[in-house]
Amino acid sequence: MGVCCATAPASDRRSRHPDMQNWNVAVTDFSKTPLLDTIRTPADLRKLRVEQLRQVADELRKETIDAVSVTGGHFGAGLGVVELTTAIHYIFDTPRDRLIWDVGHQAYPHKILTGRRDRIRTLRTGGGLSGFTKRTESDYDPFGAAHSSTSISASLGMAVARDLSGGKNNVIAVIGDGAMSAGMAYEAMNNAGAMNSRLIVILNDNDMSIAPPVGAMSAYLSRLYSGKTYRSLREAAKQLGKHLPKMIADRAERVEEYSRGFMVNSGTLFEELGFYYVGPIDGHNLDHLLPVLKNVRDMENGPILLHVVTQKGKGYGPAEAAADKYHAVVKFDVSTGAQSKSKPNAPAYQNVFGQSLVKEAEKDDKIIAITAAMPSGTGVDIFNKAFPKRTFDVGIAEQHAVTFAAGLATEGFKPFCAIYSTFLQRGYDQIVHDVAIQSLPVRFAIDRAGLVGADGATHAGSFDNAYLGCLPNFVIMAASDEAELVHMVATQVAINDRPSAVRYPRGEGRGVEMPEVGVPLPIGKGRIVRQGSKVALLSLGTRLAECEKAADELAAHGLSTTIADARFMKPLDVDLVLKLARDHDVLITIEEGSIGGFGSHVMQTLAEHGALDSGQVRVRAMVLPDEFLDHDTPNAMYASVGLDDRGIVAKVFEALGKDVTTETVKLA
Amino acid sequence: MGVCCATAPASDRRSRHPDMQNWNVAVTDFSKTPLLDTIRTPADLRKLRVEQLRQVADELRKETIDAVSVTGGHFGAGLGVVELTTAIHYIFDTPRDRLIWDVGHQAYPHKILTGRRDRIRTLRTGGGLSGFTKRTESDYDPFGAAHSSTSISASLGMAVARDLSGGKNNVIAVIGDGAMSAGMAYEAMNNAGAMNSRLIVILNDNDMSIAPPVGAMSAYLSRLYSGKTYRSLREAAKQLGKHLPKMIADRAERVEEYSRGFMVNSGTLFEELGFYYVGPIDGHNLDHLLPVLKNVRDMENGPILLHVVTQKGKGYGPAEAAADKYHAVVKFDVSTGAQSKSKPNAPAYQNVFGQSLVKEAEKDDKIIAITAAMPSGTGVDIFNKAFPKRTFDVGIAEQHAVTFAAGLATEGFKPFCAIYSTFLQRGYDQIVHDVAIQSLPVRFAIDRAGLVGADGATHAGSFDNAYLGCLPNFVIMAASDEAELVHMVATQVAINDRPSAVRYPRGEGRGVEMPEVGVPLPIGKGRIVRQGSKVALLSLGTRLAECEKAADELAAHGLSTTIADARFMKPLDVDLVLKLARDHDVLITIEEGSIGGFGSHVMQTLAEHGALDSGQVRVRAMVLPDEFLDHDTPNAMYASVGLDDRGIVAKVFEALGKDVTTETVKLA
Repeated sequence: MGVCCATAPASDRRSRHPDMQNWNVAVTDFSKTPLLDTIRTPADLRKLRVEQLRQVADELRKETIDAVSVTGGHFGAGLGVVELTTAIHYIFDTPRDRLIWDVGHQAYPHKILTGRRDRIRTLRTGGGLSGFTKRTESDYDPFGAAHSSTSISASLGMAVARDLSGGKNNVIAVIGDGAMSAGMAYEAMNNAGAMNSRLIVILNDNDMSIAPPVGAMSAYLSRLYSGKTYRSLREAAKQLGKHLPKMIADRAERVEEYSRGFMVNSGTLFEELGFYYVGPIDGHNLDHLLPVLKNVRDMENGPILLHVVTQKGKGYGPAEAAADKYHAVVKFDVSTGAQSKSKPNAPAYQNVFGQSLVKEAEKDDKIIAITAAMPSGTGVDIFNKAFPKRTFDVGIAEQHAVTFAAGLATEGFKPFCAIYSTFLQRGYDQIVHDVAIQSLPVRFAIDRAGLVGADGATHAGSFDNAYLGCLPNFVIMAASDEAELVHMVATQVAINDRPSAVRYPRGEGRGVEMPEVGVPLPIGKGRIVRQGSKVALLSLGTRLAECEKAADELAAHGLSTTIADARFMKPLDVDLVLKLARDHDVLITIEEGSIGGFGSHVMQTLAEHGALDSGQVRVRAMVLPDEFLDHDTPNAMYASVGLDDRGIVAKVFEALGKDVTTETVKLA
Repeated sequence: MGVCCATAPASDRRSRHPDMQNWNVAVTDFSKTPLLDTIRTPADLRKLRVEQLRQVADELRKETIDAVSVTGGHFGAGLGVVELTTAIHYIFDTPRDRLIWDVGHQAYPHKILTGRRDRIRTLRTGGGLSGFTKRTESDYDPFGAAHSSTSISASLGMAVARDLSGGKNNVIAVIGDGAMSAGMAYEAMNNAGAMNSRLIVILNDNDMSIAPPVGAMSAYLSRLYSGKTYRSLREAAKQLGKHLPKMIADRAERVEEYSRGFMVNSGTLFEELGFYYVGPIDGHNLDHLLPVLKNVRDMENGPILLHVVTQKGKGYGPAEAAADKYHAVVKFDVSTGAQSKSKPNAPAYQNVFGQSLVKEAEKDDKIIAITAAMPSGTGVDIFNKAFPKRTFDVGIAEQHAVTFAAGLATEGFKPFCAIYSTFLQRGYDQIVHDVAIQSLPVRFAIDRAGLVGADGATHAGSFDNAYLGCLPNFVIMAASDEAELVHMVATQVAINDRPSAVRYPRGEGRGVEMPEVGVPLPIGKGRIVRQGSKVALLSLGTRLAECEKAADELAAHGLSTTIADARFMKPLDVDLVLKLARDHDVLITIEEGSIGGFGSHVMQTLAEHGALDSGQVRVRAMVLPDEFLDHDTPNAMYASVGLDDRGIVAKVFEALGKDVTTETVKLA
């Protein structure tokens, strides 16, 4: 059941803004934002007349485009919610009313309107604004985000807190349709729907998360504005033609857009889950948005779901035409849309993974690739082109992805679950309970291991060494370069009696020579990269390159250094570890991960074998520090925490009891 | 949209089995199961005539009751699916057709029918049958379970595997209504609903998971068989009275039961998610179940959801009357239902937690208790009695529970999330992303830390020291006895700038004197329990009792032993750790957890401070072994892995290079 809230007449938005259709011709002057210039916070916005908001939105869109053209970052999502952002801050009393943006990557316009315009061109750069919402950044960000689908849970917590405190403020969550595929959003709706707490969930339905939408919910949402009920409304709109402004009535798609402004009585799925459903309405039409939001604000009971339809990239021609390419961008030329992507020196790890898996799959028809809504980010898109029937994008649903893979594995298939380290946290129980306990050969391809740069702490892959390393039955590898990744993928294909994982970082490889085919590695065996005698550096992952630089520096100080690439965190190469301890004065482990991981395993192994009893080797574990690191470039981040060549050298000297600033050091 | 599959006439089940109403009078002879005796596997079952199945089900129920009266274990759920189990194995070609029981605690009748009857009285005992489904136990268990809501994902994996292989077998998941509150089930349905893979999901709607059902989905399911559509069917059934057997027509509730056998065209929520909805039907009526299952089996396309309504504890009077008390039972007297619970020597940890929180909440109205469908298991039921408005049972929805708590914390509340260690794995990403990164003061009360006994590997709380220990901003405690837990709850109340966790085991405390009120502990400080000089035992958690016994034994060998209770895993008491290392020849850490946890943190801390450089102390970390441990008593399990007094003594001797079998050992 629903109610028609969009009682406002169809707007003449386009007639007032004909330039929207011909972007490059009409809207070129990005320097003039006279109305936006008067707005420092939403309080200023609320002083304006309703009629002025269209102009505010247009200027806000211009400012967003210009800012992102300078900084790069998430783009399409923000452009899609310019009117929604404007309308919400106009109708609601933020920050007293809590506004929670799901994921938060669409919040650039929100940041511009909430006192951060002066820093908007620092987005995602070291010391600058976060690319997501962040509590420490602004009172207008009551809940930080970056991972998807958390907003309804957080909002319900805030709504319940208000009720318990006898408060009156509103709580508004804005969540995309893609985020609705995650179980967490459903759990929250299921809980909220059974309470009578006043909560507003705005479903921003742009039919486009990072990847094309998948799943039954997405299809359902499409039906809500293209189904039978909707079609009959369109017919009604056609008949109403004589009452409509000429330019709207004479074009079919405008009629369609008009009729979307009406309530369609078909949100039964949400109604059955206990929400009062309103929508769908046109999320770019302020004449619809404003009265509907006002009505929703003034409703007195229970949770409300407002279904808003928007277009990702709205108002910027190149982004509208290819929203997937503009989900996130590097710096670009505003007039042409050309992104200034630098030519890579070496292939990106995700592509090496995708290409390697294709090669393996050409030989083995049991190989399956699974992604949770990140086909291009994980390289699964490459696999999909070659083997579409063996590729599964399950949506933002890591829990399901893992156990779906486990089901495939029970039937003799070889599923590769390609999930970023940080997102794999969402499937942790499934990894333990469905994969590891049953020792099923699910293969995890863990991209974005270690620090990830501009996306910051929320996306860092810091913990998988700890949270996977503790699990029995697992084989865990880390690639030290892109060629190693090829071999590790081949190794995973060969491991068919237990789960395996390979971790590798975001970004490009080192530019090493690539093998023609991957060759399975001996399980649990590391390799000596350089043989020395005094110092041993035992690396897991791509810090190996830093170890090599550090070894050169140590050599200049007269310290003969062995470098070993552990390759396997589990099973650990115990012989190698013991030998390194036995043959050197200092043994340093290095990894792109937190405490509790590789270094801890090495340390406990050494202790267990009595290798620390005599004191003949000084052992240190270099790990990420015990703090969440703000965004910056990965190199700057690693340098700041000592996980680079300088840090390694300093650690060696500290272990030896020497001062690294001493120019020459000779050991007995 | 749906179809009426239950074309069979209403059965006379009750007339053929009048004893069901008066259990204690009519069904008392448990020794006679003549039909069941002929069934070793489902192939034998399938040789019987349809008319014989009612008797098989009755005998199967008797055998289940008798077995559980001997072993204890999950009870109500199994009794509720006796007919369903019989019917599925009769209609489907198991094990070629894959049958996946969600959670698996209802699978005792299934085990009896699938070649495990001879061992059914070993359930949950060391070396005996698992209390859940388990792949290594039987080909009839194609997917192991114990945590809820995994079955649809696993089934979809198997169905896709079949499609890719060109197979023809069926895949059937049986999932309870309680399990439908978990996001994972939704993720799987959302994915399955968008595929055309043939998959049968049987929703076993018994309106009773462990706790009373919560959430909008549960309410929706209730409406499916008590709503308007249903009522009109009941009216229709009344009018059909003259065609019905007299004894059914003349009693209202039997008419109600009868009409449940009809398809009700209201499963739109499932239909919208892409499932073909059939039901609800009476899950105890074989005359309904068999033809419906046959029809469902023979449908050719897409995923099907069959909604079956059952009664938990069905057929055993005491269990029917109080299903919550018979969810899981200890041994009991069949004729009276009296459970032979032994009188505890000390309060259970969960109750100590609940009572402590009540005391704190009497002084602080910001304290909130949250459970994910485990109110009694976590002691939150105690809190609920005192503060019902400040208690939230969010359903089986750990992800939501954690972020809901985070939302409350942003508004100044003090939420306590009481979740078992093993289930907290479900909320791991939310702990990292929503709680730790934002440093929100959510309090985690982690029950069932360490080994749990009869529930086995799937329920062991082995990994939280590793997976939480790696997270910045966290305070992590472990209680060494029930009095310590009281103080640690008070400590959590006082920690209001960051998240905190306290872990404690399943079962009873040590019987120590209980404090009147909890007193906040100094953060990051351990305590010396006994001062010695040669050996230091540094314990985290309830192994402290074993350390005390071990110290006595070591004293008998002339080894003066210090015992320390770390209390805090994080922040670690660095001063204490360094002092123990400095002042003793041997330092052993002991915890109820895996590698990567407390022992690892101590080891890395010692190394970082150079305390291992001189070799003057021999350090060992005693942790759970790198394997999943089968069920047994907790004591037997700990003993088997050396985490008891004997194991500790042996470890000390090993570290000292002495043989523990040597009667007397004196160190210089």
